[in-house]
Amino acid sequence: MKEARYFYVPHADQSSELPADETHHAVRVLRLQRGDEFFLMDGAGTIYRAEVTLASGKHCMYKIVEALPQSKTWNGHIHLAIAPTKMMERMEWMMEKITEIGFDEASFLNCKFSERKELKLPRLERIVVSAVKQSRKPWMPQLNGLMSFSDFIRQPRQGKKWIAHCYQEIEREDLFDQLQQTAPNEAVTILVGPEGDFSTEEVRLAMEHGYEPVSLGNSRLRTETAGMMAVSMSQIAKRKS
Amino acid sequence: MKEARYFYVPHADQSSELPADETHHAVRVLRLQRGDEFFLMDGAGTIYRAEVTLASGKHCMYKIVEALPQSKTWNGHIHLAIAPTKMMERMEWMMEKITEIGFDEASFLNCKFSERKELKLPRLERIVVSAVKQSRKPWMPQLNGLMSFSDFIRQPRQGKKWIAHCYQEIEREDLFDQLQQTAPNEAVTILVGPEGDFSTEEVRLAMEHGYEPVSLGNSRLRTETAGMMAVSMSQIAKRKS
Repeated sequence: MKEARYFYVPHADQSSELPADETHHAVRVLRLQRGDEFFLMDGAGTIYRAEVTLASGKHCMYKIVEALPQSKTWNGHIHLAIAPTKMMERMEWMMEKITEIGFDEASFLNCKFSERKELKLPRLERIVVSAVKQSRKPWMPQLNGLMSFSDFIRQPRQGKKWIAHCYQEIEREDLFDQLQQTAPNEAVTILVGPEGDFSTEEVRLAMEHGYEPVSLGNSRLRTETAGMMAVSMSQIAKRKS
Repeated sequence: MKEARYFYVPHADQSSELPADETHHAVRVLRLQRGDEFFLMDGAGTIYRAEVTLASGKHCMYKIVEALPQSKTWNGHIHLAIAPTKMMERMEWMMEKITEIGFDEASFLNCKFSERKELKLPRLERIVVSAVKQSRKPWMPQLNGLMSFSDFIRQPRQGKKWIAHCYQEIEREDLFDQLQQTAPNEAVTILVGPEGDFSTEEVRLAMEHGYEPVSLGNSRLRTETAGMMAVSMSQIAKRKS
């Protein structure tokens, strides 16, 4: 059995040639030839069944055979805003995992106790594209570059807003309980802090801007595990049956 | 502020000397000295506050100052039985994450479509010990070595038993719905298959032995992500508030 081939091609229906980064894989690795079938994911809700019309050294031309519009498998809009970890591979791992699990938007925060003050978005984007293809997600999530914590929380935002922190002395609700009380189509934004947590100032500032403090449960989690749990909880609460 | 030091010492109350693997860290890395305080985790539900009585090149002696019995933060017994992935680092990553999230027992299955037919348990055990310390888990989870799928499912087992698989044509319940219908103290065992899934024969055999088929949701997940989701769902359903 031939494994189905999936390529990520934004606006696939407005082109007839694979982009350069996918061409190498199609022509050199998979050795596709005229007449072979493959699937194009446009990252905007449609998967296209297509056929190779010409495959040469550096070009792979196609024609679309059928448009297959997909349905979203969860409700609302899941937005994770997280302070990137010092070790970049922990963030990369998390991005792969939350893409498989399913989210809509990720933002990266520069916080008071952040150990990482700069971030290379293109590498994370490549990891997400790869996981989108592997897990066949019809929608490409949106990634936003590093932004200061105070700028982020000042941005207007639809739906429910939570800040996850570890201070025992600041009262917190359970995130999963809160998620279950949310209307299905309501957007959710969850903030997850750096290795050293948010500062109490940051928690206070977020609360002043409408973020409610939450806990991710009884466990002491690393930053990347906390980010993944926030997305898992959102997905479980918002999945369509 | 000095960070609190945690050491994993089984039967800590029956000894007065750190084991060799922890001594190096205590004496050479942290440079603990007579009178310094640390915490000993016995992996069986108690954390001990202790004091260094002697620290020399290769020995670190202690006396226990106070026993701090811990309470479990979730109900029942969470058992994940999974076919290890071809790339061992994916299993190592998963073991770290499920330790942080919280589980009780893990078993490894040799399945028809397994790409990995042997497993070095000591390395996984070291990763779990490290995550137990980092996430301050009072109980050390139990790890069982690789076993054939058919031997595993024939073992008698308490509580609810599920097999997660991806065959659309074999009816499946949603694992999280099932977990929520389970009595709080009931043990749960969840089987997760290899990259190529369980064979339909294996699914049938498991069903004959009382395993009910379940789905982990609408997403196409890698094996290690599926294992982590199974533990996350169990933890969310069984956590104490």
